[in-house]
Amino acid sequence: MKAIIPFKKEGAKSRLGDFLCEREREELAIRMLKDVLAALSKSEIEEAEIISTGSEEIMEELKSGLDSHVRWKLKLSAREDGRGLNAVLNEVLREEKEPVLIIMADIPLATPESINEIVGHEEDVVIAPGRKGGTNALFLRRPSEFAVSYYGISCLEHIETAKRRNLTHVIHDSFFIGADIDEIDDLTELLIHGRGFSAEYLRRIGVFLRVDKKSKTPAIVDR
Amino acid sequence: MKAIIPFKKEGAKSRLGDFLCEREREELAIRMLKDVLAALSKSEIEEAEIISTGSEEIMEELKSGLDSHVRWKLKLSAREDGRGLNAVLNEVLREEKEPVLIIMADIPLATPESINEIVGHEEDVVIAPGRKGGTNALFLRRPSEFAVSYYGISCLEHIETAKRRNLTHVIHDSFFIGADIDEIDDLTELLIHGRGFSAEYLRRIGVFLRVDKKSKTPAIVDR
Repeated sequence: MKAIIPFKKEGAKSRLGDFLCEREREELAIRMLKDVLAALSKSEIEEAEIISTGSEEIMEELKSGLDSHVRWKLKLSAREDGRGLNAVLNEVLREEKEPVLIIMADIPLATPESINEIVGHEEDVVIAPGRKGGTNALFLRRPSEFAVSYYGISCLEHIETAKRRNLTHVIHDSFFIGADIDEIDDLTELLIHGRGFSAEYLRRIGVFLRVDKKSKTPAIVDR
Repeated sequence: MKAIIPFKKEGAKSRLGDFLCEREREELAIRMLKDVLAALSKSEIEEAEIISTGSEEIMEELKSGLDSHVRWKLKLSAREDGRGLNAVLNEVLREEKEPVLIIMADIPLATPESINEIVGHEEDVVIAPGRKGGTNALFLRRPSEFAVSYYGISCLEHIETAKRRNLTHVIHDSFFIGADIDEIDDLTELLIHGRGFSAEYLRRIGVFLRVDKKSKTPAIVDR
């Protein structure tokens, strides 16, 4: 079974710009991708295709950081494409004969168990929502019969598309798949639950949590 | 199997204060509790005890709004207690011989399926995390051997407590259980995914979503 991972390195994670410099944001982005690949490598997924601009450079960086187990387990490839997400993905899907999992690169807490549950559902379309109506993972048993529509409240759009095309669908309910890292507050989740490449990186560059004494809620310490 | 639901009506959801007036916040709080009770009534849970101040008044309000199916299915009771969450719960747990589910009242998107999965785990302690390290549901097979510690990063505290007391534990991975409604941004999740009492209430009082044309992200419309 194949996973497709759209990835953006240049100018990645701009909403973290008040907190991390551009180089740090790009490094965090690639490390989150590594976390996703590590989870995929421990799941039933056999192949991962990264769709990105600068794909050659990214493959080099991945090879240097991923342990051989992940590289051995996952057949990795990269497709150079600078078009918008929907245009690229829908072109790929039209030609795709086998089931495919589209999974975002910014969900470093994704677990192999949850990925296996997603691809284990019997429905034609499995939608794992992200915050604010995003679709963080989308499993398509009959990809050529579907068309993605990311941006906006995409999880509702994907439900509508499934209905309109007479495809069965199910919502996959996962906290960790749902935790996309976009804003400074999201780093809280990564530091609390993360044990992988990206959480280790944040700790190394001095990003920590502090629990506010009054509100008792954890917040990122401003460096 | 029994569920315990700590509930606070007076001064509830103060972080929504810029957006909803006190009466609206209290109404929202009680409607979210109704959503949780409705989900519990469709799950394997047979009994729900609400721990609160003003418990008699709350039972009256619940009776007027919940349909008879929920009231018939769940054995509902209320315990008047104004002490802090940890003190009350730990006193209850010490005497409890049967497995118990502690579930928060502000997770209106909780599904019966997820609740059944939680109580279906074989481990002694099942922890369903909320945002920012909270514990939104906690299932204890041997409650008298555990002690809760809410506030702060409670999900990590609960993992540590399980380890220290030689109890097996597992993290339950649920987006909808994890979506506690505390801040204005959280209302986004409720309006996108909610089909119950609380989402219906928000729509009725004119709280809507608008997708920002530039950022393509949904936000609550300021009334």
